[in-house]
Amino acid sequence: MAGNSFGTLFRVTTWGESHGRALGAVIDGCPAGMPLSEDDLRAELILRRPGRRYTTPRREPDEPQILSGVFSGRTTGMPISVVVWNRDVDSSYYESIRETPRPGHADLAYVKKYGYENWDYRGGGRASGRETVGRVIGGAVAKKLLSCLGVLVTGYVVELGGVSFPKADDPEEALRSRLSPFRVLGNEEEAERLLREALSERDSLGGVVEVVAWGVPPGLGEPVFDKLKADLAKAMMSIPASVGFEVGWGFALAKARGSGARDPIVASAGEPVLGGERAGGMLGGISVGGPIRVRVAFKPTSSIMIPEKTVNIRTLEEEPIRVPGRHDPAIVLRAVAVAEAMAAIVLADHSLRAGLLSPVRLEWSASCERVWKLYEEFSPAS
Amino acid sequence: MAGNSFGTLFRVTTWGESHGRALGAVIDGCPAGMPLSEDDLRAELILRRPGRRYTTPRREPDEPQILSGVFSGRTTGMPISVVVWNRDVDSSYYESIRETPRPGHADLAYVKKYGYENWDYRGGGRASGRETVGRVIGGAVAKKLLSCLGVLVTGYVVELGGVSFPKADDPEEALRSRLSPFRVLGNEEEAERLLREALSERDSLGGVVEVVAWGVPPGLGEPVFDKLKADLAKAMMSIPASVGFEVGWGFALAKARGSGARDPIVASAGEPVLGGERAGGMLGGISVGGPIRVRVAFKPTSSIMIPEKTVNIRTLEEEPIRVPGRHDPAIVLRAVAVAEAMAAIVLADHSLRAGLLSPVRLEWSASCERVWKLYEEFSPAS
Amino acid sequence: MAGNSFGTLFRVTTWGESHGRALGAVIDGCPAGMPLSEDDLRAELILRRPGRRYTTPRREPDEPQILSGVFSGRTTGMPISVVVWNRDVDSSYYESIRETPRPGHADLAYVKKYGYENWDYRGGGRASGRETVGRVIGGAVAKKLLSCLGVLVTGYVVELGGVSFPKADDPEEALRSRLSPFRVLGNEEEAERLLREALSERDSLGGVVEVVAWGVPPGLGEPVFDKLKADLAKAMMSIPASVGFEVGWGFALAKARGSGARDPIVASAGEPVLGGERAGGMLGGISVGGPIRVRVAFKPTSSIMIPEKTVNIRTLEEEPIRVPGRHDPAIVLRAVAVAEAMAAIVLADHSLRAGLLSPVRLEWSASCERVWKLYEEFSPAS
Amino acid sequence: MAGNSFGTLFRVTTWGESHGRALGAVIDGCPAGMPLSEDDLRAELILRRPGRRYTTPRREPDEPQILSGVFSGRTTGMPISVVVWNRDVDSSYYESIRETPRPGHADLAYVKKYGYENWDYRGGGRASGRETVGRVIGGAVAKKLLSCLGVLVTGYVVELGGVSFPKADDPEEALRSRLSPFRVLGNEEEAERLLREALSERDSLGGVVEVVAWGVPPGLGEPVFDKLKADLAKAMMSIPASVGFEVGWGFALAKARGSGARDPIVASAGEPVLGGERAGGMLGGISVGGPIRVRVAFKPTSSIMIPEKTVNIRTLEEEPIRVPGRHDPAIVLRAVAVAEAMAAIVLADHSLRAGLLSPVRLEWSASCERVWKLYEEFSPAS
Repeated sequence: MAGNSFGTLFRVTTWGESHGRALGAVIDGCPAGMPLSEDDLRAELILRRPGRRYTTPRREPDEPQILSGVFSGRTTGMPISVVVWNRDVDSSYYESIRETPRPGHADLAYVKKYGYENWDYRGGGRASGRETVGRVIGGAVAKKLLSCLGVLVTGYVVELGGVSFPKADDPEEALRSRLSPFRVLGNEEEAERLLREALSERDSLGGVVEVVAWGVPPGLGEPVFDKLKADLAKAMMSIPASVGFEVGWGFALAKARGSGARDPIVASAGEPVLGGERAGGMLGGISVGGPIRVRVAFKPTSSIMIPEKTVNIRTLEEEPIRVPGRHDPAIVLRAVAVAEAMAAIVLADHSLRAGLLSPVRLEWSASCERVWKLYEEFSPAS
Repeated sequence: MAGNSFGTLFRVTTWGESHGRALGAVIDGCPAGMPLSEDDLRAELILRRPGRRYTTPRREPDEPQILSGVFSGRTTGMPISVVVWNRDVDSSYYESIRETPRPGHADLAYVKKYGYENWDYRGGGRASGRETVGRVIGGAVAKKLLSCLGVLVTGYVVELGGVSFPKADDPEEALRSRLSPFRVLGNEEEAERLLREALSERDSLGGVVEVVAWGVPPGLGEPVFDKLKADLAKAMMSIPASVGFEVGWGFALAKARGSGARDPIVASAGEPVLGGERAGGMLGGISVGGPIRVRVAFKPTSSIMIPEKTVNIRTLEEEPIRVPGRHDPAIVLRAVAVAEAMAAIVLADHSLRAGLLSPVRLEWSASCERVWKLYEEFSPAS
Repeated sequence: MAGNSFGTLFRVTTWGESHGRALGAVIDGCPAGMPLSEDDLRAELILRRPGRRYTTPRREPDEPQILSGVFSGRTTGMPISVVVWNRDVDSSYYESIRETPRPGHADLAYVKKYGYENWDYRGGGRASGRETVGRVIGGAVAKKLLSCLGVLVTGYVVELGGVSFPKADDPEEALRSRLSPFRVLGNEEEAERLLREALSERDSLGGVVEVVAWGVPPGLGEPVFDKLKADLAKAMMSIPASVGFEVGWGFALAKARGSGARDPIVASAGEPVLGGERAGGMLGGISVGGPIRVRVAFKPTSSIMIPEKTVNIRTLEEEPIRVPGRHDPAIVLRAVAVAEAMAAIVLADHSLRAGLLSPVRLEWSASCERVWKLYEEFSPAS
Repeated sequence: MAGNSFGTLFRVTTWGESHGRALGAVIDGCPAGMPLSEDDLRAELILRRPGRRYTTPRREPDEPQILSGVFSGRTTGMPISVVVWNRDVDSSYYESIRETPRPGHADLAYVKKYGYENWDYRGGGRASGRETVGRVIGGAVAKKLLSCLGVLVTGYVVELGGVSFPKADDPEEALRSRLSPFRVLGNEEEAERLLREALSERDSLGGVVEVVAWGVPPGLGEPVFDKLKADLAKAMMSIPASVGFEVGWGFALAKARGSGARDPIVASAGEPVLGGERAGGMLGGISVGGPIRVRVAFKPTSSIMIPEKTVNIRTLEEEPIRVPGRHDPAIVLRAVAVAEAMAAIVLADHSLRAGLLSPVRLEWSASCERVWKLYEEFSPAS
């Protein structure tokens, strides 16, 4: 059943397989009047692109092409269709493992659900991490839209291979992770050491991404099912390889006493606000003003040279499989861009749902531009 | 904006406030032909009911009344409307704290979003845990429907106040938690000790619920956004007081190496299946056959006698607040029933979406009945 | 599958059967701050009520009870649940015709779809016109909401038994039909004569309702599928007994030449507006300012004493059936209230979708009140 | 707000502007295992293509390119993305009329809603009839899917310029209209005469399309809002230039007496079925088995050389406009393909909703193939 659209008012539909002709996204519900160019998308795509250090060597130029919804450099309110052509595709390897579903991958699920005959087994097909190209495109449009609310969406790695990395206390600090190939805020050497070690052992690492949205106005989230925390959870847990999600202190809060688990409410500039981050910036699943903070756990890359047991679909015999391919030692590095994108999509959608942005027409002002420029300032060249 | 419906084909809409006239749910999309009575609902409502030991002493009979969609004891395929009248309501206390939003509660969010004048402040209004009555009703219908697929949805407390409690290895073991006032599988004395201690200190405890759905067939979950894990995440994170969610090993998986993070695929009765529980029973967000295992973290009850800082909305002065009310020392005990209900709703919806159940007509057989009876067998008398 | 909700942001879910315990609606997405009482609903319910002259003599008090979403007389932004209890129910007659599906009624469709055993045959069950109680409740809330945009939704009969009746040129004229038992604007004697004649022949009449929404602002309707005309069409064609729909000149426009089919664009108060009603107030399916005009055709009441052929479901023999019951000689008279309600729901939803009303909080002003009072001014006492 | 997706389980999202780079559709929810090629789409696109006789001379090759969702010639269950590149685009003319919204076109609505600056005025932008390319692509996939239920979707012109044309009594007869440039069943000379006459007077004609779906099984349509007739109405009234919709006898039924308005129920091959076409094959908005018959009225082409009054958006002065362009004398001729496509999308969606087709996996059999071949048999070469 149809499951490739996300969002209610700001709705992103993605399509495309790892080794198909192309991938893309249709973004429906972006108001008219927002400047948008392929450069805006490219900058975000670079951050999820493989080919940076310690990510898979597959070379994808990931050149986005806007086919509709933009006229004279501005959105028209019509659906924005973006395509990215697949170029560097080599499917030959997958032929050889077609009958042995890779442990940790979606292969077995697709075979059971859609049938072996109907399964595009090349590079994981639709279940490949490459699918997230469409998400990042949608996220870029969402981020730009959110700029007009003063919202900045950032992400970084706070845990890699079980080792903790620093958190950000302000937006600029958070943005700095965009310039790090490991998406961390400090301790780059440690990150590099961990990755090098895993690689040398032909193994892989998991990790945790923290996404912080700065400057989120109060009122986002619709009780009782479409709470902001609920939609963020769905967004994050739809990302390939995600295995956990928490808001604020999350699982640590479950160990706390009630007396230490509540953010005090304090007066700030004549406004009652949260005096802490235990709740991640939400009460009752609704933003109350201030940063929204969530974390997403990602499992280690499943495609490694260390063999694991599987079952041959034809013979039904158990046999070991090792997956060389072209893969990341830690998928979490590239997942940062995707988690940011999904958060931005949720926040854009909820900003529209809460009436904080016009669903029809945007006034793109200097202050929108100022926020948007912050992303560019912290964009790697390639 | 409309946010009180959950599900696509099996859709539950809930309504009602803590101190309003009534609460209820409309369940739309239940196939015709399923036996359904108020007794079926009552049994599940008892499990989320306050008034059991160590939960709030508020006495609610929670008598469900089915107003539509059932004829001659069977569902007709039409929307099932259920109402539960509020009886034991005393709003006087809330008058006194109306101007001082309770830390950890949704008060401040509602005031900021909907306006102080429009806020039903009595007992938390719509943001009260009492809202979950509608979820449990929807969940009871979903559980009964899932019986025909052989699916049994169970839950229990695996962590309370930072202390671990046992997990279930089979469905009957899991069901046994329904008979425990602490919803644990063993170590009841420890649970009781923890609660008594917290109560004596006028404090409260958080905890973690594990929900296991047994006998889930392969193929549930729709790529790429409506994955089973994604919809479960949304369902769980929409529950009041939830702060974290994980599938399988979850956050622990983020600390593992790739070589230890993959469930081997093994042959079982001539079928390739998962030889482990790291992934919680899903690959690519799709069930592959076997139990689905997720965990949800709940924060400690916020309404305690230990004061916390808040801001008076009129004076904008900071002042401490203590919240006597009638409250649970650990909301997580009652959250088990709600988490089970939400899981059941997601699984029923996805069973329909994957075509595993007819959306129109159900044949209620002896084997459906057998599964459904298991719940009854482990139902507390009151 | 779930099909009992209508609308995207302003969403009405209805439930209930003709001879069940009760019927009702849940209205989700109404902004906070709108005054709402049971009186507001009662006034509209009276207009669809049977028991006025020349409608079925079934006596239903139709007392609406608001169970949630309203606090201190104002909406809270939470779902508004309304119930109307069934009182005057006599199902004995339907027992006798249970095996002979009534021609023109939904009986046969329900039997084929849901199964004979699962069919609530009493009074048409869910397929009864009584189902529209929930629509009218939703419509009343929508109308009140639209008052704040200056929009007034009116309807009247323009054709009865093939005879034409006058159209309205201004809102007050249109409102006057609310005081007519035949819902016409003039020629009441002719309407009465037609009905008396049909009754005396134990036959029934069809007719056409025109719905005009006055004061609709430009910009309602979302290309390309959720055009205003498309959603109005769906709304109207979901009403029991509706068989046709047209906007503006409708089918007559299909006979016109292009040179006579376009509304000129003229300047009015310095604004370009439509200088005609050919297009019903929309271009490209989007409102352009000015009245929206649509028409809905209703077939004659199917339940009449004149026999028609049917097939006994048990014997599979053909046999004639005559349906005494308690029925209207012309369903179209009561359909006016329902068509108005559905139009109001669509317009309220699209006003929110186009950002013309805040989805969160309404300022209820004297000018809102002024528009809303117009309905009351033209409300029959009972 | 997002409005470019249609359908619940079988969901078509379209995008693209008349003079943009490309147009396309994403079809989400098509089960795996259906053979699909670009040829399948091409055959249907030819039927809506301009460039046939008496349609606009704009030459569009309309070459569909499938970018995803098909592997080894069969659908995979993943979203099917199709693109059609715009080639024959000349926007210069539209520059000259940019400030004078064309009467009968959507120009004024788009300017008022999205803002003059954000309006893609070239060739009507998104509001162009060219938008329907995406609908026809979605419809082709839907038709092929419906073949497996034995459903054949046909359409033809039953009224042109006020003159009636014959209806079909069986599927093959209906299919024959695909070979007629006027999409009529007989009286081609009369159709040609009417068109030639209108052209010579530089005027245009409206008309009515009848769509008949043959072999529709009982049970399609979900009470009470998602009735089959309601969703067909929305589908049809979302088509550019549509102004009216009716099922069965439609508006004529409103003039009938009840005694003549009911289809008798008769026994056919031991099954109770409708013995007439008054209701268009539905009862209570649900199909009962047998052909579904609806009609859609289309207004005459608005772009003609005969001038009409408009208002200059800059000067706010009234002035006449004539629209040369490259246009059809009767849009209704090409609308047949679009109306068929929309009907097919609705029926495919409802077949899935009613559980008559697996949402996951299709067995493409010889009998599916046989039905699908019927379309090809009656396909024009170009």
